[in-house]
Amino acid sequence: MNTWPVGMIGGAPGSFMGDVHRRALALTGRFSLVAGCLSRHAGTAQKAGQALGLDPARTYTDWTQMARVEAARPDGIALAIIVTPNDMHLPVAAAFLEAGIPVLCEKPLALTLDQARHFTERFITKGHDMVVAYTYSGYAMVREARRLVHDGTLGTIRNIQVEYLQDWLGDADSDGGWRLDPRTGGAGGCLGDIGTHAFHLAEFVSGLRCEVLSARVSRLVPRHAVPDDAQIQLRFSDNAVGSLWVSQVATGSGNALRLRLFGEKAGLEWNQEQPDTLIVSTADGRTTHIARGGSAVGTPSLLPRGHPEGYLEAFARLYADTAYLLDGHDAPLLPRLADGVRGQEFIEAALTSGTQYGAWVSVRA
Amino acid sequence: MNTWPVGMIGGAPGSFMGDVHRRALALTGRFSLVAGCLSRHAGTAQKAGQALGLDPARTYTDWTQMARVEAARPDGIALAIIVTPNDMHLPVAAAFLEAGIPVLCEKPLALTLDQARHFTERFITKGHDMVVAYTYSGYAMVREARRLVHDGTLGTIRNIQVEYLQDWLGDADSDGGWRLDPRTGGAGGCLGDIGTHAFHLAEFVSGLRCEVLSARVSRLVPRHAVPDDAQIQLRFSDNAVGSLWVSQVATGSGNALRLRLFGEKAGLEWNQEQPDTLIVSTADGRTTHIARGGSAVGTPSLLPRGHPEGYLEAFARLYADTAYLLDGHDAPLLPRLADGVRGQEFIEAALTSGTQYGAWVSVRA
Amino acid sequence: MNTWPVGMIGGAPGSFMGDVHRRALALTGRFSLVAGCLSRHAGTAQKAGQALGLDPARTYTDWTQMARVEAARPDGIALAIIVTPNDMHLPVAAAFLEAGIPVLCEKPLALTLDQARHFTERFITKGHDMVVAYTYSGYAMVREARRLVHDGTLGTIRNIQVEYLQDWLGDADSDGGWRLDPRTGGAGGCLGDIGTHAFHLAEFVSGLRCEVLSARVSRLVPRHAVPDDAQIQLRFSDNAVGSLWVSQVATGSGNALRLRLFGEKAGLEWNQEQPDTLIVSTADGRTTHIARGGSAVGTPSLLPRGHPEGYLEAFARLYADTAYLLDGHDAPLLPRLADGVRGQEFIEAALTSGTQYGAWVSVRA
Amino acid sequence: MNTWPVGMIGGAPGSFMGDVHRRALALTGRFSLVAGCLSRHAGTAQKAGQALGLDPARTYTDWTQMARVEAARPDGIALAIIVTPNDMHLPVAAAFLEAGIPVLCEKPLALTLDQARHFTERFITKGHDMVVAYTYSGYAMVREARRLVHDGTLGTIRNIQVEYLQDWLGDADSDGGWRLDPRTGGAGGCLGDIGTHAFHLAEFVSGLRCEVLSARVSRLVPRHAVPDDAQIQLRFSDNAVGSLWVSQVATGSGNALRLRLFGEKAGLEWNQEQPDTLIVSTADGRTTHIARGGSAVGTPSLLPRGHPEGYLEAFARLYADTAYLLDGHDAPLLPRLADGVRGQEFIEAALTSGTQYGAWVSVRA
Repeated sequence: MNTWPVGMIGGAPGSFMGDVHRRALALTGRFSLVAGCLSRHAGTAQKAGQALGLDPARTYTDWTQMARVEAARPDGIALAIIVTPNDMHLPVAAAFLEAGIPVLCEKPLALTLDQARHFTERFITKGHDMVVAYTYSGYAMVREARRLVHDGTLGTIRNIQVEYLQDWLGDADSDGGWRLDPRTGGAGGCLGDIGTHAFHLAEFVSGLRCEVLSARVSRLVPRHAVPDDAQIQLRFSDNAVGSLWVSQVATGSGNALRLRLFGEKAGLEWNQEQPDTLIVSTADGRTTHIARGGSAVGTPSLLPRGHPEGYLEAFARLYADTAYLLDGHDAPLLPRLADGVRGQEFIEAALTSGTQYGAWVSVRA
Repeated sequence: MNTWPVGMIGGAPGSFMGDVHRRALALTGRFSLVAGCLSRHAGTAQKAGQALGLDPARTYTDWTQMARVEAARPDGIALAIIVTPNDMHLPVAAAFLEAGIPVLCEKPLALTLDQARHFTERFITKGHDMVVAYTYSGYAMVREARRLVHDGTLGTIRNIQVEYLQDWLGDADSDGGWRLDPRTGGAGGCLGDIGTHAFHLAEFVSGLRCEVLSARVSRLVPRHAVPDDAQIQLRFSDNAVGSLWVSQVATGSGNALRLRLFGEKAGLEWNQEQPDTLIVSTADGRTTHIARGGSAVGTPSLLPRGHPEGYLEAFARLYADTAYLLDGHDAPLLPRLADGVRGQEFIEAALTSGTQYGAWVSVRA
Repeated sequence: MNTWPVGMIGGAPGSFMGDVHRRALALTGRFSLVAGCLSRHAGTAQKAGQALGLDPARTYTDWTQMARVEAARPDGIALAIIVTPNDMHLPVAAAFLEAGIPVLCEKPLALTLDQARHFTERFITKGHDMVVAYTYSGYAMVREARRLVHDGTLGTIRNIQVEYLQDWLGDADSDGGWRLDPRTGGAGGCLGDIGTHAFHLAEFVSGLRCEVLSARVSRLVPRHAVPDDAQIQLRFSDNAVGSLWVSQVATGSGNALRLRLFGEKAGLEWNQEQPDTLIVSTADGRTTHIARGGSAVGTPSLLPRGHPEGYLEAFARLYADTAYLLDGHDAPLLPRLADGVRGQEFIEAALTSGTQYGAWVSVRA
Repeated sequence: MNTWPVGMIGGAPGSFMGDVHRRALALTGRFSLVAGCLSRHAGTAQKAGQALGLDPARTYTDWTQMARVEAARPDGIALAIIVTPNDMHLPVAAAFLEAGIPVLCEKPLALTLDQARHFTERFITKGHDMVVAYTYSGYAMVREARRLVHDGTLGTIRNIQVEYLQDWLGDADSDGGWRLDPRTGGAGGCLGDIGTHAFHLAEFVSGLRCEVLSARVSRLVPRHAVPDDAQIQLRFSDNAVGSLWVSQVATGSGNALRLRLFGEKAGLEWNQEQPDTLIVSTADGRTTHIARGGSAVGTPSLLPRGHPEGYLEAFARLYADTAYLLDGHDAPLLPRLADGVRGQEFIEAALTSGTQYGAWVSVRA
């Protein structure tokens, strides 16, 4: 299998998401990072490029130039990876798509639903698409959960409960950086930063569409400029109900993304902090923990049963799928532009409902 | 310590709650069951009385007569225990309170808030009160949780999440008996049957009052006559928010009552299915499981650490407190009439909000 | 069902085992405590009898007298319950059996294997037997485990691992009372106090016999007069191997009795601190937690699924079986005299091997 | 930081350990795989080299030649990674060390203790050393455990329990390949394949030395040519006792490596299948789960709290340390030749004791 040259925009060494993307790329063995626009500041950009072993000629400070130059090179990048603050996602993506370079972009897609829609109208109509980094859909047992639901293991789904809890913004001195600044992170706060992951997970696994929602959206730490905690009643297609709770001030929670589905025949649970296990419960009192890598599992994985896979391995699965896409194949589980827009629809519906005392609001599809 | 003679109304041998109450009574060693109105049918009542070793003269078929006769006996019962279907709770309680006999009554108190209020107005003003069987407040670690919250272990509480899940009404042939008949169980369905437990638990442990709520109330199994699943947004005093989810159709759930509180300083969790453990989490990544009976625990218990206590032991703690009350002492943790009324306020507010598309409704205090 | 009058020897109120036995008796609803020899000291005995509501005429200070008088009474006790220190078990039991009164006795049976054997020879030949309080065999899910093994769920058993860990003797000031005095507790220390429970559990559930063992027996807290920690290699009938580890100085352990069986087809695990769950694992990566009370379980229990049963409920199951025995039925799961002798064989074999550098020693059957 | 060129001997694509090493190398970002002797067969070797993107000129079929040629190249490899069957470990290592090329080698080091000792005498005296892949010591929370022990969190250690359970050799048709052939895997079977990991873990975390052992060594599946299950009593320096149980036929176990230490002040537990958590228990009934990445943890890690790290990340930590070593620094936690020899001492002592009915045998240091 060939190796695809890629470039990164944002994500200088030491940034959380930049490092994560690079490690996930490396795990796949399918990509080579050869270009970057790691900072707008020349000194920082050069230093970052050097640390990553980039050719100085391919260390940019202007992504427009990067898109133009790379598109022109015979050995130009085959994929632009966008890990900037949220406000820059779509401007950067536009530049690369315009230049004919495929894009993998962090979520949330945009600051507003309008931006996301305009972007989509502009590019989808031209046949463009892009990959959106809903990381958690890359876990083997999340995909296995989706498969079990699809195969009817749960029967008709009645109730979908998803929650995503963190506490890093919970103390008095928490500094969320650009994430807490509505100009760079968006007005959604925790809804955009982690709520979109939870929302995507619920729809991805259940195969159902959330039609309307009713939200309570709060700033539980009053000095925060954007929501840090929200709980949202959900109504799905096929009469399923549910709830999504997201918080970045839930003291004692690390990265507690947890999905539970309750169907007529069984309940199903997955916790991101123990990602190798899927829990299926039935009304006869049996609760079965299914281990990734075991012969009872249909979804392939990197490592055998009992050898833990983690967050980077999930991320690598998204990149492996992306390589497969670049190879010319289909990768139906990979989140795409439409899924990114869906996240914006969720954020906007939740914010709207939250300011209308929890009125039921359509999550426009 | 003396032993108190008690009588039971409802709860013939083989009924779930009747047997549970009798075992809990026995565990305390403080009561002697000497009278009963176990059925309205003479044959059944006599047979039940015999099986329980009651004096035939104290085996009644009419609770009014039982109240009158027992009140007149020099060795009459010191406590009437009411374990009838919900519609009979208050009529029976009234008869015994009128006769001057203290009462311990199952929840929910009544079929409607109005009934509960009228009853309260009638008796509270005369100085009467009664014990209401919010069983779960009898668990040692629930009381310990309340103590930790009161002592400031969590700091200011931000978010309260309580859920109570069962699945015994989840299958196609489930038969809820009188519980699913609005005439005998009330219109609240799962809200009254188990939701009141969850609501009491949240207020009991947190020490906060729920002021308003917004409810989604459903019959997920369409043929059910009363709600079988509801999720309710809560707003508490002191700006805390929260959620209460109750379901009797959550496939794979046995009796999954779970409370989580998130405060500024720590999070706290208790699960009824592992009742001997309290889980306290802090933002430094430590999650501490505190074992009942250990020297780190301030609440006394029956058995030493590592020797599991269960549901009956929790129930026995309510009865031990009741004996203590009969002895003439105070038992401040014991749920009383006001707590029973509170449950009705919760049911009514939830039903009202549920029929108004989740409008925020006051939980009148 | 009738109620059986019983008497207790040892176990004044406030003693751990005395209270436990009384609560377990009460839970069954099948016994009435009417006589006692709760202390050798008249004042203490009378006070204890009064606290328990005994007739002063049936409050004894001499068990020989108690046996004689109760045997002569038309309403004499139907069962003598022996909860004295270990050295008194057999002398007391002999007096009651001689008087024709059935006995339920605490473990370990005796101070030495010789004592146990002589006792057995003396009484078994006369058709006498007695119940021995291997409490943990009273848990519903222990009995269910035995049933699953017997039904072939595990296939041929390869390896049996049992451990019983406590830490109450682990600190510098621990005072084990008569348990640490070889004259009253026996030379076995932890082997007799808790090791016999573990040994019985392994044989009870597996249905196999331990044939030989090799022991490391230690006093890890040097000032202890008897062993406080021992680990023992086991070889069973049918070529199964295994290990038994017992410790009362395993810091951080409450009452951690845990059994694991590994068979050709599945592994099985039970933990006393979460007694309502049985865990079955298979090589396809499925680990199933089976809940007591669920329809998947064949063993009956007091409470429905999700309503925790604990230590007292297990104890009550032994007493319910004992009542059933007194009723004239068979109770094949109840531990009897032969099981008590088996415990002594285990203690003696382990002590012998321990002093012979772990030589393999026969556990004489 | 520069990138080190490395070569691999054994481990063609598709082999478990070859892929694992390559992914771990990639995760560090510190190495570049540039040469390989992936098979002795020219066709296979060339195809494997091509799949890995190696220069055909550096795709060897003879490791002796590889060592010679790479040592002579100005851009020759800085590290030889040996992932052959066990019998080839030392011959290959000798060739590279002779050529002056540092080595990282899989365990167990050799087929016999004698081989390991001769090798060590030959190379250590010349100042050579090498890295041995005791993978599990690369987990962050294993290192944190070692740190806590060293800092006195547990007090004096009394008992060390380690077990390593798998089931992939448990069924009737299991085929262990070269691992079950004593000529290629050694006579130790499970002792070498996984027991050495467990033994290293126990000494690595506790800081104690195992002085003598007494083993039961079995072939529970009779047709196996080498041991598949062994349980070993351990005596450590400082009067600690313990046990090591290893099995590859423990049905229902994936890769269940679990270490427990019991000290005077606390107990500590780590499970490989949930590697991000360290569990510390104290006699007051508190059991604290410490999360990797939390501020309570002193050992650095790749990912923040709540973002699971797994087996590859542990392996990558060994490689990051190796790069650090090549950089000229010290890496004191990295397992070296002496640790590899220690593994052989363990295997030999266990085999010897096992054939002598569990006689206590010195683990020569």
